[in-house]
Amino acid sequence: MSKDGLAESYRKTRSVTVEICDPLEVEDFVVQPADFVSPPKWHMGHTTWFFEQFVLLPFRDSYQVYEPSFDKIFNSYYKSVGDHWKRDRRGHLSRPTQKAILSYRAAVDEAVLQLIDLQHFPPDIYKRIELGINHEQQHQELLLMDIKYILSRSPIPIAYRPATDPGTMQSKRLQYVRFDPGLTEFGDNALDGFCFDNETPRHKAFLYPYHLANRPITNGEYLDFIADGGYRNPLLWRSDGWDFIQKSQDKSPLYWNNLDGQWQEFTLNGLVPLDLYSPVSHLTFYEADAFAAWAGARLPTEFELEFAYGNASIESSGFLEAGYLRPHVFSQGQEFYSLTGNLWEWTTSAYSQYPNYKRPEGALGEYNQKFMVNQIVLRGGSFATPKIHFRNSYRNFFYPIQGWAFTGLRLAKDVA
Amino acid sequence: MSKDGLAESYRKTRSVTVEICDPLEVEDFVVQPADFVSPPKWHMGHTTWFFEQFVLLPFRDSYQVYEPSFDKIFNSYYKSVGDHWKRDRRGHLSRPTQKAILSYRAAVDEAVLQLIDLQHFPPDIYKRIELGINHEQQHQELLLMDIKYILSRSPIPIAYRPATDPGTMQSKRLQYVRFDPGLTEFGDNALDGFCFDNETPRHKAFLYPYHLANRPITNGEYLDFIADGGYRNPLLWRSDGWDFIQKSQDKSPLYWNNLDGQWQEFTLNGLVPLDLYSPVSHLTFYEADAFAAWAGARLPTEFELEFAYGNASIESSGFLEAGYLRPHVFSQGQEFYSLTGNLWEWTTSAYSQYPNYKRPEGALGEYNQKFMVNQIVLRGGSFATPKIHFRNSYRNFFYPIQGWAFTGLRLAKDVA
Amino acid sequence: MSKDGLAESYRKTRSVTVEICDPLEVEDFVVQPADFVSPPKWHMGHTTWFFEQFVLLPFRDSYQVYEPSFDKIFNSYYKSVGDHWKRDRRGHLSRPTQKAILSYRAAVDEAVLQLIDLQHFPPDIYKRIELGINHEQQHQELLLMDIKYILSRSPIPIAYRPATDPGTMQSKRLQYVRFDPGLTEFGDNALDGFCFDNETPRHKAFLYPYHLANRPITNGEYLDFIADGGYRNPLLWRSDGWDFIQKSQDKSPLYWNNLDGQWQEFTLNGLVPLDLYSPVSHLTFYEADAFAAWAGARLPTEFELEFAYGNASIESSGFLEAGYLRPHVFSQGQEFYSLTGNLWEWTTSAYSQYPNYKRPEGALGEYNQKFMVNQIVLRGGSFATPKIHFRNSYRNFFYPIQGWAFTGLRLAKDVA
Amino acid sequence: MSKDGLAESYRKTRSVTVEICDPLEVEDFVVQPADFVSPPKWHMGHTTWFFEQFVLLPFRDSYQVYEPSFDKIFNSYYKSVGDHWKRDRRGHLSRPTQKAILSYRAAVDEAVLQLIDLQHFPPDIYKRIELGINHEQQHQELLLMDIKYILSRSPIPIAYRPATDPGTMQSKRLQYVRFDPGLTEFGDNALDGFCFDNETPRHKAFLYPYHLANRPITNGEYLDFIADGGYRNPLLWRSDGWDFIQKSQDKSPLYWNNLDGQWQEFTLNGLVPLDLYSPVSHLTFYEADAFAAWAGARLPTEFELEFAYGNASIESSGFLEAGYLRPHVFSQGQEFYSLTGNLWEWTTSAYSQYPNYKRPEGALGEYNQKFMVNQIVLRGGSFATPKIHFRNSYRNFFYPIQGWAFTGLRLAKDVA
Repeated sequence: MSKDGLAESYRKTRSVTVEICDPLEVEDFVVQPADFVSPPKWHMGHTTWFFEQFVLLPFRDSYQVYEPSFDKIFNSYYKSVGDHWKRDRRGHLSRPTQKAILSYRAAVDEAVLQLIDLQHFPPDIYKRIELGINHEQQHQELLLMDIKYILSRSPIPIAYRPATDPGTMQSKRLQYVRFDPGLTEFGDNALDGFCFDNETPRHKAFLYPYHLANRPITNGEYLDFIADGGYRNPLLWRSDGWDFIQKSQDKSPLYWNNLDGQWQEFTLNGLVPLDLYSPVSHLTFYEADAFAAWAGARLPTEFELEFAYGNASIESSGFLEAGYLRPHVFSQGQEFYSLTGNLWEWTTSAYSQYPNYKRPEGALGEYNQKFMVNQIVLRGGSFATPKIHFRNSYRNFFYPIQGWAFTGLRLAKDVA
Repeated sequence: MSKDGLAESYRKTRSVTVEICDPLEVEDFVVQPADFVSPPKWHMGHTTWFFEQFVLLPFRDSYQVYEPSFDKIFNSYYKSVGDHWKRDRRGHLSRPTQKAILSYRAAVDEAVLQLIDLQHFPPDIYKRIELGINHEQQHQELLLMDIKYILSRSPIPIAYRPATDPGTMQSKRLQYVRFDPGLTEFGDNALDGFCFDNETPRHKAFLYPYHLANRPITNGEYLDFIADGGYRNPLLWRSDGWDFIQKSQDKSPLYWNNLDGQWQEFTLNGLVPLDLYSPVSHLTFYEADAFAAWAGARLPTEFELEFAYGNASIESSGFLEAGYLRPHVFSQGQEFYSLTGNLWEWTTSAYSQYPNYKRPEGALGEYNQKFMVNQIVLRGGSFATPKIHFRNSYRNFFYPIQGWAFTGLRLAKDVA
Repeated sequence: MSKDGLAESYRKTRSVTVEICDPLEVEDFVVQPADFVSPPKWHMGHTTWFFEQFVLLPFRDSYQVYEPSFDKIFNSYYKSVGDHWKRDRRGHLSRPTQKAILSYRAAVDEAVLQLIDLQHFPPDIYKRIELGINHEQQHQELLLMDIKYILSRSPIPIAYRPATDPGTMQSKRLQYVRFDPGLTEFGDNALDGFCFDNETPRHKAFLYPYHLANRPITNGEYLDFIADGGYRNPLLWRSDGWDFIQKSQDKSPLYWNNLDGQWQEFTLNGLVPLDLYSPVSHLTFYEADAFAAWAGARLPTEFELEFAYGNASIESSGFLEAGYLRPHVFSQGQEFYSLTGNLWEWTTSAYSQYPNYKRPEGALGEYNQKFMVNQIVLRGGSFATPKIHFRNSYRNFFYPIQGWAFTGLRLAKDVA
Repeated sequence: MSKDGLAESYRKTRSVTVEICDPLEVEDFVVQPADFVSPPKWHMGHTTWFFEQFVLLPFRDSYQVYEPSFDKIFNSYYKSVGDHWKRDRRGHLSRPTQKAILSYRAAVDEAVLQLIDLQHFPPDIYKRIELGINHEQQHQELLLMDIKYILSRSPIPIAYRPATDPGTMQSKRLQYVRFDPGLTEFGDNALDGFCFDNETPRHKAFLYPYHLANRPITNGEYLDFIADGGYRNPLLWRSDGWDFIQKSQDKSPLYWNNLDGQWQEFTLNGLVPLDLYSPVSHLTFYEADAFAAWAGARLPTEFELEFAYGNASIESSGFLEAGYLRPHVFSQGQEFYSLTGNLWEWTTSAYSQYPNYKRPEGALGEYNQKFMVNQIVLRGGSFATPKIHFRNSYRNFFYPIQGWAFTGLRLAKDVA
């Protein structure tokens, strides 16, 4: 990518973040109604701090720190660059104000664009800015997850955006597509473009034949699971999952609400009647896994999905560019529906490092590797993922209880 | 008080609440950095809801509820008028916005003032509006306590207002004034003006002779207590107090901060060097009580203070009208310094009902009586209390751990 | 009391503790199924440690500590004599064994009795041994409370002792007896016998006329309260009490159990059908207080009970000597039933110090005073209190949530 | 295996459990000083219940349940066969007594041995009894882990057994052995003997070349890690691990204790000076993983260990039969020290199901599969594992925080 291309990509990414927040009131930028949510203004500050900390300070001698106190507030978890404000107290801070953060963004943007514009522009800087752009794209998706949660807490119904109807959905017959991989290569080596370190190195793995469902599970099917006592039958659940729902008293997915016998779902378009043909979303891993057990199937592994992405004829629709801020069923080629760009699909794969993985040097070694325990890989990208941000080898990861993310459920089966 | 007087008092009280919030940014209205703090916008809504719920709805047939969802959000704890939003989640709500709440205030103000203006205006309404005014005055003081806490959390130092220097303080010699009450009357019957039900009925109690300190304990004296190992000596503390500081790891009062050996205190004027001659404030009951044990004295009872207010020649300075948003040492007649209108002084008296107390009928019976367990009476009013709001019989009450309030410490002794 | 009398009293008290534990299996001595319960072997060790620490070590030069590690284990809360094992971990210790503790008891008993037998026996020692005896009597009652709780946890029903039927109970009509105290004296000065420091000094207080119920509230009456929605009506409860039952999900007293529509109660005689005519017991303060509100009455103050004990003609039956390990309704003179020696009756009086109270010097100053906050006074003695241990001025105290004690409920009313 | 062989194996396993408990006092059988520990008497009851529930009740028509209440108490987690007593409350129960449990064991033993002795003895029963035997062997090891923890809590030092010195240990040079597996088979199909379902099916996987350390890490090496600030450097730790040690305040492994500058370790032989040449044990996964990061290496995967067991010349010493109840360094062939039968070595492999795994039908499907999330595989067997219980494909699993198990640490490296 050229200098101009990079500057353009930087400008665009930075402005998308601001656009995502356009529908918000000032007060919406501040609150943190759950530990796993960050206030939108924190996202706006943190993505800016990332460029300041990892691009401007190391590569721009003349750069003066914008405001020293921001360093603690907007550092997420990089222990190597100093103390950080506790995650679960991000909503305790009223300052800096949203307005002050916009000024911070403007100042950093100016400095970064000047840096790009310099005569001699070493590849190291290029890579860092590219990482910063990809980092901000990740936060755009997190922003939408957090905004949804924040608006959902209000006793006064709030829609983030008016609905954009993707058309009438109909029931597509659930069918299984067979794959026979054998010894295959997975991952990426970033030879032709950016990838995260957790996708590397490209490596061989042996995969048995498997069946993958042609479409995601729908709200209607999940309702059948509930009606059949899914939340009351411990034999369907992982032990930790069963304990979790005993404590949380969950009896349906996050955002579902049974009002006088009518199921409703809180969406980015506000509270709407539950759409039975829409893909079920916001499941925890435990819920997705219990449904699979009930259905006599299982969740796919991360490699089964990666192999399918590369070996089925997938037409790339979906993703953020499709403009629907909701999951839906759309055709992607002859066999599959909504395989990528719809919802992050839970896998059975624990998030861990690939063979011969090398952790990056320095502070950016903290980006991914230290999270490789207790979390689970999700694959496929969602309606909130920019298409350019996605690759077949892309690994997202969440804790098994994190149903607030845009998660989805697709079944797989052994070839017995 | 005449109709005009009531309308004037209503208008003034309502506008003071808004003025108190003048220095705030929108974001400051939203956050709840601790369970015991309420977001300023919640206070603004709740005091308005109080008039809507207890004045407009019962006494104005034509009145239409402003917005039904506010009923849940702005009800503090009145179970008899419906469900209320959980106290520790007030900071989870971004909506209604501060602007929307100002509109709510304006609409309710208009309706209340119209009601006052009516031809026939029964005494019941009068009393309810008077209660609402006193209720809002209580929240003005709570607002200042909460604003102080909110601003104190910021890593970026924030002053609520620039300092107004009450003049150089000097050490006043600590002396004890003796009182010999015997069988005496306490409390109020609201014969000549408003009082809360917890001050009633006026009743007899027998009080032994006692000594009361002429002035509050200062920061400097409290520093001596710390230096002498006060926080490390369990014999000075109540059992629950000792357990509390083991868990909280408190080693000095809230808002004190030792920066490289220099003590600083966060105040409504921002972070300032600790003033050794200023009265110590923001103590928990446990801290105040431990200091008294260390000093070979004790805290007074609530009646010992009430008796002193009525039987010493107290000139009424201090209170909100003095214009200092901080404790200080000022003379109140010949014997006492800062006895009223300075800080709410901890007593040894558990908050309970007076002999022959009658709980008010209906929802307003929830105003005071249900809190008469586990809390402790504080007396005297503070620099944040409007003078008109105070009476000698006034009983404030907090849990023993609530040092975030404008609390103070005055010693007493037995006459052995 | 003579030397011989003291030795006799010591021997008797020490052997009663062992007798109380006779029905237990070794395993019963070890467990701590709730933080507020202590394992029986801890009680046996602690009461012994009390004599070692406060009698033998200070007054017997030649005495060698029995086993240094016991000092930490069996110190309950006396910070002035060293670290103590955390209360909520008493059940984590399997050692010392019950057998080892019995050896410890024997060794200390021998040394104490030798000390009593000495030629010169100063009054100080006498008082300490008397305190140790009274201390152990308190623990005998606690032992029975804890044993009951321990046995109640078993899924296999266990009776501590076979039932001793106090005879058929009948409904006694609830009537109120009026008292007109005025200015009166309360408390004790230990002029003629032992009393605890929390009962001193004898002092004047003014008491308004009041009505006191002639008998305790029964299980049947409490059942009416439940049936009438008592646990669902927040207006009957203190605010903290309502929060407590929301969290605990309590819907009936501790030890009550509704099995297929039949109410049962776990007693020291095992699980029995609920006796409707028996006094209700094991209430928290919040439950007792809510019942009183439902009944249009209130709880008495501690002084109203003390005055009644001294001014009604009370025949002293009840107490441990009566041999019934359960509450029951028995006549005590012409007016009252089960006024003393039946159940510790909750009062509205917060536990605090009397006017001109002096805390004892040294470690024994920790016996009572440091608990004088957050707790509530109970009066009257229970079926588990030795008669000799009781005085009209006796003040027991528990936290408002501690329904595991042998608590009871008697109503009072104002004379309006 | 013949009927006689099975009966013999049953008898032997059952008696070993009792022998393991021989050194205990009755009180030691009762306590549960941490949630992850079970009281020894619970293990004795649970292993018995397992035979009653899964052998006698399904296969012996005439069998009468020994005591219905035991079903709830001794069911560990089999939801399909009814409610079970909460795990963290096992130490709340004093009953049934240890003696009563021994009677229970005797009655079940008699019935099982009669069943084995029957004329027609179908293979299903055989397999169930074999599973019960292997289950009890697992609990023998857990018993030793729990006994160690229980005894360690005592302020009075207690040795489970006197030390049996494995001889002077010397420093063995740490060297790495290279393996080049490629596409290989792992797991077991139980064709020639018992294996657990989590080891099945045998399946292919591709493994890159790797280096495996010839010996475990020693206490002395771990001390170097501590001295070098290992517990203070967040960059060495997984994010969850760092959070964990901030909260737990761990600064050394469980059972280590620094007394006046001298390191001591609590062992099954009591408190002893830390042996610098002994393998470090009782690490959490986080500690083991942080050490590896500090050492510039990594933990092995479970397959790297399984491959090494099968492809190096390992002489089988170690295990329970060696008679040392402690880790030590012993030669196992030419290359490796203490590779199996010493300590369960942490791997980087999340515990999950093998390709084409089938969960067993019925209640025994709950044995393993429902734990396949959030846990980590450990391999190799320990000094507390009976040799017959071990296979190269054996997968143990614990949560990453469970350092109370007999865990160990061996390094691996990539072949770069």
